[in-house]
Amino acid sequence: MAEKNESRKYTKKTNNKTQNKNTQKSRSQKSAAPKKSAPKKDVKNTQNKKISKKPIKIIPLGGLGEIGKNITLYEYDGDMFLVDCGMSFPDEDMPGIDIVIPDFTYVLENKEKIKGLVVTHGHEDHIGAIPYLLRNFNVPIYATRLTIGLIEGKLKEHKLLESASLNVVKAGSVVKLGKFSVEFIHVNHSIPDATAFAIRCAGGTVVHTGDFKIDTTPIDDKVIDISRFAEIGKEGVLALLSDSTNAERSGFTPSERLVGGSFSSLFRQAEGKRIIVATFSSNIHRIQQIIDEAARCNRKVAVSGRSMLNVVSIAEELGYLKVPQNVLTPIEAIKNYTPGQIVVVTTGSQGEPLSALHRMAFSDHRQVEIAPDDMIIISATPIPGNEKLVTKVINELMKRGANVVYERMYDVHVSGHACAEELKLIMSIVKPKYFIPLHGEQKHLMKHAELAQLMGINKENTVIAQNGSVIELGEKTIKSIEVVTAGRVLVDGLGVGDVGSIVLRDRKLLADGGIIIVGVTIDAVTREIVAGPDIVSRGFIYMKESEELIREISDLVWDIMDRCYYQNIRDWATIKNKIKDGVSRFLFTKTKRSPMVLPIIMEV
Amino acid sequence: MAEKNESRKYTKKTNNKTQNKNTQKSRSQKSAAPKKSAPKKDVKNTQNKKISKKPIKIIPLGGLGEIGKNITLYEYDGDMFLVDCGMSFPDEDMPGIDIVIPDFTYVLENKEKIKGLVVTHGHEDHIGAIPYLLRNFNVPIYATRLTIGLIEGKLKEHKLLESASLNVVKAGSVVKLGKFSVEFIHVNHSIPDATAFAIRCAGGTVVHTGDFKIDTTPIDDKVIDISRFAEIGKEGVLALLSDSTNAERSGFTPSERLVGGSFSSLFRQAEGKRIIVATFSSNIHRIQQIIDEAARCNRKVAVSGRSMLNVVSIAEELGYLKVPQNVLTPIEAIKNYTPGQIVVVTTGSQGEPLSALHRMAFSDHRQVEIAPDDMIIISATPIPGNEKLVTKVINELMKRGANVVYERMYDVHVSGHACAEELKLIMSIVKPKYFIPLHGEQKHLMKHAELAQLMGINKENTVIAQNGSVIELGEKTIKSIEVVTAGRVLVDGLGVGDVGSIVLRDRKLLADGGIIIVGVTIDAVTREIVAGPDIVSRGFIYMKESEELIREISDLVWDIMDRCYYQNIRDWATIKNKIKDGVSRFLFTKTKRSPMVLPIIMEV
Repeated sequence: MAEKNESRKYTKKTNNKTQNKNTQKSRSQKSAAPKKSAPKKDVKNTQNKKISKKPIKIIPLGGLGEIGKNITLYEYDGDMFLVDCGMSFPDEDMPGIDIVIPDFTYVLENKEKIKGLVVTHGHEDHIGAIPYLLRNFNVPIYATRLTIGLIEGKLKEHKLLESASLNVVKAGSVVKLGKFSVEFIHVNHSIPDATAFAIRCAGGTVVHTGDFKIDTTPIDDKVIDISRFAEIGKEGVLALLSDSTNAERSGFTPSERLVGGSFSSLFRQAEGKRIIVATFSSNIHRIQQIIDEAARCNRKVAVSGRSMLNVVSIAEELGYLKVPQNVLTPIEAIKNYTPGQIVVVTTGSQGEPLSALHRMAFSDHRQVEIAPDDMIIISATPIPGNEKLVTKVINELMKRGANVVYERMYDVHVSGHACAEELKLIMSIVKPKYFIPLHGEQKHLMKHAELAQLMGINKENTVIAQNGSVIELGEKTIKSIEVVTAGRVLVDGLGVGDVGSIVLRDRKLLADGGIIIVGVTIDAVTREIVAGPDIVSRGFIYMKESEELIREISDLVWDIMDRCYYQNIRDWATIKNKIKDGVSRFLFTKTKRSPMVLPIIMEV
Repeated sequence: MAEKNESRKYTKKTNNKTQNKNTQKSRSQKSAAPKKSAPKKDVKNTQNKKISKKPIKIIPLGGLGEIGKNITLYEYDGDMFLVDCGMSFPDEDMPGIDIVIPDFTYVLENKEKIKGLVVTHGHEDHIGAIPYLLRNFNVPIYATRLTIGLIEGKLKEHKLLESASLNVVKAGSVVKLGKFSVEFIHVNHSIPDATAFAIRCAGGTVVHTGDFKIDTTPIDDKVIDISRFAEIGKEGVLALLSDSTNAERSGFTPSERLVGGSFSSLFRQAEGKRIIVATFSSNIHRIQQIIDEAARCNRKVAVSGRSMLNVVSIAEELGYLKVPQNVLTPIEAIKNYTPGQIVVVTTGSQGEPLSALHRMAFSDHRQVEIAPDDMIIISATPIPGNEKLVTKVINELMKRGANVVYERMYDVHVSGHACAEELKLIMSIVKPKYFIPLHGEQKHLMKHAELAQLMGINKENTVIAQNGSVIELGEKTIKSIEVVTAGRVLVDGLGVGDVGSIVLRDRKLLADGGIIIVGVTIDAVTREIVAGPDIVSRGFIYMKESEELIREISDLVWDIMDRCYYQNIRDWATIKNKIKDGVSRFLFTKTKRSPMVLPIIMEV
């Protein structure tokens, strides 16, 4: 850990320094509300004077029409800054892809104007693409302490930590970025130290929520700073950009504390038995509740899974996780205890094939062999698309006799996102003139826009944008004025962006039907076949059982080559196409399948 | 339609004939309860005399530990019969596969003993594999009228209708199958004419529910025959095999009629606008409710999607769908009406890429172009695994401005399966000695077994089986005595079972990393390279942008071949392996990716 502290020393400035530096840089700091009091008049004045001249532009470059890779660019009078820089996971139509990041074209084109990146919280869909941005553009980063800690871990892996400029900001403080000031406001979410932003410039005030929920009994007792939202609302807010993830769900999201109650009764039920809890590694309050309950039951807690170990160590070091003495034990040491003395906290709540829980389920975990007496708690909901993966793991654990508790059966998970009533509450106190729903697929954004209408925000004052939309916040109207480059860039291994639509299309074709390769060697002079045709297939049929079919393909290729020879066709491309079409047609008639057919002709 | 009637004439016998035939064949018909009255004594006597000698065997060959491909074999004293013969859909780890059917090995081994196939209802997971069975074993089939109608359609497509023996059985009747008799009992489900079976033999009575729910207000007014279940329960039931699909859900499944109420208010909201409803084509009562509501609102109904057209025509012909005069209109004719005069009923409620709704969403439907004023109702829940497909379609429809109503927002769907309280109710009146949960993944089966324990059925009297388990119902105990061949057979195009684990593994490798083909031609005498190495890739990188990498691979292959030459390695397999390993290692180091590497060496 010494190493980590050291690197932080070089790269991180305290909040105070940041503010001082920024204050020196800019004369308009006064209107940027460094304290919670009295910025009201200044802002109003500035607005009255300037709003008719220069509009604020907001350019979401990711996170709209999708879940993940959140990134938004703000522009005012030639100055820009970024909010968040996240990744998303590949869809089922992107085989082999590791992660998806935003297209940074427009960001890089505007490098000179961009004064910084402010980050709402430390989830992958808000920080995961930072290393890929920093490779090309070493923008200064501002975030709360835990968020910076998680970004550090990421940059270290990518060997970018030394050069990065990481700045810790406390909730309640203000960062000056060119003609903008950004006030950090504490919110509740499924990770500690999450923030919303009040973004101020001479063009007006914009509130950008990030991911949030309203938890009146959070585990760290830090309730979302509702009164600050209310104060800002009273000052006058031009636009609200808010989290749409749960806009479809009515009512309120329950408090994280509800899960603690469930743990408490489940731990009692499991007396004498081993308990294994799978959850998101970043849900530090969830882990805190597991540790607290384990301590109450005199159990040791062992952590399994790389990201879980990583986050627990960062969170404990930074004081976000409070672990009583002698409660944690290495996973290797659990064999020294009886099952009733152990709680294992593990990754794999999404059924991920390489995760610790998956390995336990399929008897591939070095330290944990599932036993019929184990109680396994899946403290998470499957992210859309992961349902079948999670079910597979649950079924497998049950086949081993374990008692598996998951959300459908018990309150072992709550969402980190605000439901309809919370979203409406925020609108009611922020009282924005304009509304832009953020974070979500079309259906979430539209539902959120409907909620805004219920709250009296006109349809004309709401923009459902897409990635790349340039939204102009005028004095009287809000509109989407143009679309800039935005999209997805696929990361596969070390390659960033080199897998495009053609490669993906080929992967899908290969997956669906496999490949047939037709190898032929031709005499360059006589143009006769001197070797082959060799027919090789992969993923089409099992070759050893299909000798006749292979022979028929070979005969067909002979025929096609013969015909080309007699028709005096000498162009390789034409011959290849004739082989490809002929073999494809033959195989489709014969098998109703469409493997990729790839002729390779060599000349001697 | 004339053609269909004709073929039915040749292949289908009426229920009465069936019964007569069977009565002639067998002397024990009397104990098989052809009427609902008085079979009680006989059965009891038979049970008392014989149960100690010969046990009933139940062999589920599909549908356990999975959703779909339901098939169960019953055996008593050398006689056998089958219940259901369904298919399932491929998992995400079976790319390119069309459907999955049961492994019929054990069925075909016992052809001589198997007296018939009784089918509970006409859903694909209960009838979909029948054509594949009939190719190898022309077993007589017994089912209710609608079910037979749907099986006919299927067999016609497979050109098996002429030879098939299809027998219509009315609920309440009994079919004699060797030493067994099977009584058909009416149940509610998301398709009309669904049945459960009371299976009798000298070894005792077994109740096999099929898929069911308890709907006290079904659309056809035919409530599940609870009193018959109760009578049979009083006679004494050895074992209950029951539908576990919704065992995890507490309470009762709502009546289908609930959806009609929702349609009613949604249709009112949509006055003057076009309405498009997507649902399962087999949910005839749902379609009935749409037609009824359309008629009330003076709208025409147009049907879109092949399977929807097919089922609507069969159901109308057989009298299961009652369409008022002049309500149906061909989809081609909707342009003659105003939007407010039209309801389109369509397939695609699961977001299937080739379905009508999907084509509408992506502007690829010939007759229906989505307009901002359309109201689109998705009257279905995504089947696990289809969540993202459905969401994609919803988002796309919304982008076109349509008002999309789906389950999360409104009661536009109810399940066809019994929830916990219904399952308990059936157990309470059937009062079985033994319990075997059917139809479901491990988690559903286990939850259902827990419910059975609540109802006083001992854990020792419950068997959670797997596909292939041979369950012996003894006088005192129930046990799984052996496991016979059972599993999945993959259907890809015309190929049945020729795609095995190696082909699937290759498809997955190809999908994840693509393929690099290394073509080399060698002089057979000098063993020098005379053509190539040619490097071709598909699904790995875009070749046109990767000339340098291709050159490096080519150089590497030269080196490897040179080394083989000087080391006098003349074995093609060894040389190929060296190329494969060398290129794979190089590419992984360079790109952290693992394409399949396939060397093709030709000799001249």
